[in-house]
Amino acid sequence: MKISARNVLKGKVIEVTKGATTSHVRLDVGGNVITAAITNEAVDELGIAVGKDAFAVIKSSDVMIGI
Amino acid sequence: MKISARNVLKGKVIEVTKGATTSHVRLDVGGNVITAAITNEAVDELGIAVGKDAFAVIKSSDVMIGI
Amino acid sequence: MKISARNVLKGKVIEVTKGATTSHVRLDVGGNVITAAITNEAVDELGIAVGKDAFAVIKSSDVMIGI
Amino acid sequence: MKISARNVLKGKVIEVTKGATTSHVRLDVGGNVITAAITNEAVDELGIAVGKDAFAVIKSSDVMIGI
Amino acid sequence: MKISARNVLKGKVIEVTKGATTSHVRLDVGGNVITAAITNEAVDELGIAVGKDAFAVIKSSDVMIGI
Amino acid sequence: MKISARNVLKGKVIEVTKGATTSHVRLDVGGNVITAAITNEAVDELGIAVGKDAFAVIKSSDVMIGI
Repeated sequence: MKISARNVLKGKVIEVTKGATTSHVRLDVGGNVITAAITNEAVDELGIAVGKDAFAVIKSSDVMIGI
Repeated sequence: MKISARNVLKGKVIEVTKGATTSHVRLDVGGNVITAAITNEAVDELGIAVGKDAFAVIKSSDVMIGI
Repeated sequence: MKISARNVLKGKVIEVTKGATTSHVRLDVGGNVITAAITNEAVDELGIAVGKDAFAVIKSSDVMIGI
Repeated sequence: MKISARNVLKGKVIEVTKGATTSHVRLDVGGNVITAAITNEAVDELGIAVGKDAFAVIKSSDVMIGI
Repeated sequence: MKISARNVLKGKVIEVTKGATTSHVRLDVGGNVITAAITNEAVDELGIAVGKDAFAVIKSSDVMIGI
Repeated sequence: MKISARNVLKGKVIEVTKGATTSHVRLDVGGNVITAAITNEAVDELGIAVGKDAFAVIKSSDVMIGI
């Protein structure tokens, strides 16, 4: 599937922290660390684990700019 | 101001496209291009312009993972 | 790409309205109409057009419940 | 209250999973399953429970399109 | 309809600016100004206009904290 | 850092509830209570605690209007 989200950034999973329903997944994306809060279920279904290649996907209307 | 958003990524503005009310701002962040859709008003107020240093700021609950 | 978003709903594009930078795309999803506000650029790049099959993709943290 | 969100989809609650602070609520909406991640507090206050009629409410700027 | 969003703030519309597809609506909420970016269509359908009472509705997962 | 988000509302922290990965933080903003769902990590890093001054920061595209 191709997605309309403008930001699809290739990285590698460096940390997965599971909570009761929500997991935090950290990717290394070209030296930057990006944190995603997703469902535990998605972590299991996609087999997200440390060391795997993965993409951070972000809709452009969810990106702010800081100066 | 320090912000709770987990993702504050340093980059440089490479494109600003103004619409009727919504602008698209592109940053180069370590070789990745990140697109933000923000208000025209914010572009004006923060003086966002091509060549300026800026941060992409993204709440972790707005980041998805693709495999 | 498989995505962590829990909601990937199959439908058919029934309307595309382009604005200055933001388009509104309407899908028929099993008799319900779902409206997406996405960038013009995404509409062009994905070739989104009336009559095409498409998915509405929604992160579960963006869904509210009304009673 | 009438709401500006373009997507108000009628369904029935088929699952409620409570976490420490965040619940996952699943609705059957015309044969599609829609997952919402909302606060435990909202689940309690609105009395969201399996078998009840409910609406999935989604702002159009939170809907992406996949092809 | 009662909604799961934790933040439903009563105010009065003080400005409506229509774009090509996206409108900006400003509410005075107890002396604070809150800006919403919503579809033109929602503005028309709800009859949102300067001087009217209205609520700003915000899901708690869309609120960040700054210190 | 100045941020593009149009809504930066000054308040005082009145409640912090930590979950497994997600915290709920309540601010009193001019008599209105605003709830934010943020990461535990952000709560720790910013030292968010009852009685402290803080801002609720909300992107305008995440604000809906109810009538």
